[in-house]
Amino acid sequence: MQIATGHPAAKQVLGLLRGHGQPGSTDALEEAELTVAEGFWACEAVRDAARDRGLRVVSVLYCPQVLRPDGLEVAHQLADLAEQAYEISAKTLQRLAERDRPDGLIAVVELPTWTPGSLALAERALVLVADGIEQPGNLGTLIRTLDACGADALVLTNPRTRRANVKVFRASHGTVLRVPCLSFATVADGQDWLDGAGFGVYLADTEGASRYSDLAYADRTALVLGNERFGIDRAWYRESAARVFIPMLGVADSLNVSISAAVLLYEARSKLADWR
Amino acid sequence: MQIATGHPAAKQVLGLLRGHGQPGSTDALEEAELTVAEGFWACEAVRDAARDRGLRVVSVLYCPQVLRPDGLEVAHQLADLAEQAYEISAKTLQRLAERDRPDGLIAVVELPTWTPGSLALAERALVLVADGIEQPGNLGTLIRTLDACGADALVLTNPRTRRANVKVFRASHGTVLRVPCLSFATVADGQDWLDGAGFGVYLADTEGASRYSDLAYADRTALVLGNERFGIDRAWYRESAARVFIPMLGVADSLNVSISAAVLLYEARSKLADWR
Repeated sequence: MQIATGHPAAKQVLGLLRGHGQPGSTDALEEAELTVAEGFWACEAVRDAARDRGLRVVSVLYCPQVLRPDGLEVAHQLADLAEQAYEISAKTLQRLAERDRPDGLIAVVELPTWTPGSLALAERALVLVADGIEQPGNLGTLIRTLDACGADALVLTNPRTRRANVKVFRASHGTVLRVPCLSFATVADGQDWLDGAGFGVYLADTEGASRYSDLAYADRTALVLGNERFGIDRAWYRESAARVFIPMLGVADSLNVSISAAVLLYEARSKLADWR
Repeated sequence: MQIATGHPAAKQVLGLLRGHGQPGSTDALEEAELTVAEGFWACEAVRDAARDRGLRVVSVLYCPQVLRPDGLEVAHQLADLAEQAYEISAKTLQRLAERDRPDGLIAVVELPTWTPGSLALAERALVLVADGIEQPGNLGTLIRTLDACGADALVLTNPRTRRANVKVFRASHGTVLRVPCLSFATVADGQDWLDGAGFGVYLADTEGASRYSDLAYADRTALVLGNERFGIDRAWYRESAARVFIPMLGVADSLNVSISAAVLLYEARSKLADWR
């Protein structure tokens, strides 16, 4: 069945792309943690996650007019996995997709959620705490890096951007569908969970006391990165938390938050991991 | 003197923001490597570079109506350093600035240039070769990371985005004014320079032969990062070039290029540098 932009499924895509469900809103979209996967590679990631882990696919919208054969195959596979599937015209596609020359595939999916109880941790574990991160591109890049270095989870405190933001999906290269995430209402709640699980906590701070490359890192390591402008919430600064810095040898006084996270994550990973 | 959007200086800002001088154009703006610094921190960086290194400031446009006292002070300092200085109204500012709530300061500057002969290298040196990087945000983040880790230069081959793109300035946090950059017309020219200066060359390649953390790195190290989609130009794959990988432990098959660069740069820096 072919639908146009007035159809509820198309309206849902547009609403999600326009950012309904911002923090603080009571929009129903927020409750369900729905997001949009747009394009061939994104929809491949959705298909794989639906098959491997039962990801809920709310709808798939595809445009036979512009899809290449391999894209059409993914569309049909997704149609089997999705609750609803619709064809759209090239004109409708152009109005829905957020970029030039879209390749004809759009899916609405529900992000998986995790709870502290459902997260199985090995003796050695590595998590990243993203405290107050504002920019969805940064959050997405953090998630992509967590996936790459085989980290165990993302922990969110003071969230200022939603994981369901479509820019997070894009910057994460779809890994937001896979990387476990725990979100805590307060810093204290996050600390309680980390303490209970025996994590050593390391705060990334340009004024830190220890150079990142000098540390041994605890068997269970939690790295804390803060807001792009204001840094880490003061509540994270307890005596038990180590403050760690990355040397800044130039004129600028800080690194992009996702760059800092990557340098720290790979350093900790190289010291904790199997690869040495 | 107050000017409006029809004035040549304001038109120049708009032209630069709209991306005149794309690669391949013969626009005069391209010749001069002009770029726009917008906002308080950006104009502070311009002021410092003008004072310390004689950066050419073509014009400064400032809005006394919205500037805070510290911003007005920077405006006056820049007016002394710039070839032209103009006041603008809040309305004109809004039409020139690319963001919400601009803080009232805009400068047009000429990016400094370097030549192989003007670049002094110590016995130990670290450079990053950016081959075919497409996205200005990535190029800017690379430059910011080069500044932070005290690298010696950025080397460009197969350039697909211009250093003068305003998005590069923003993502670099103004460090594009400081980080030395050599641009080569061909890969062979870049290789000739690196060979002549005795650099060891390391290609970032997910199919690489050596894990990045296992290498010692040459006293003069050149890390090569490639295009976001197509990787490194085959011409870089000579027998003398090492291929180095960062472990990918998740479902995605690559890292963001500026993330890979940061992990490699800090690893090489920590092995070459003074800080150990």
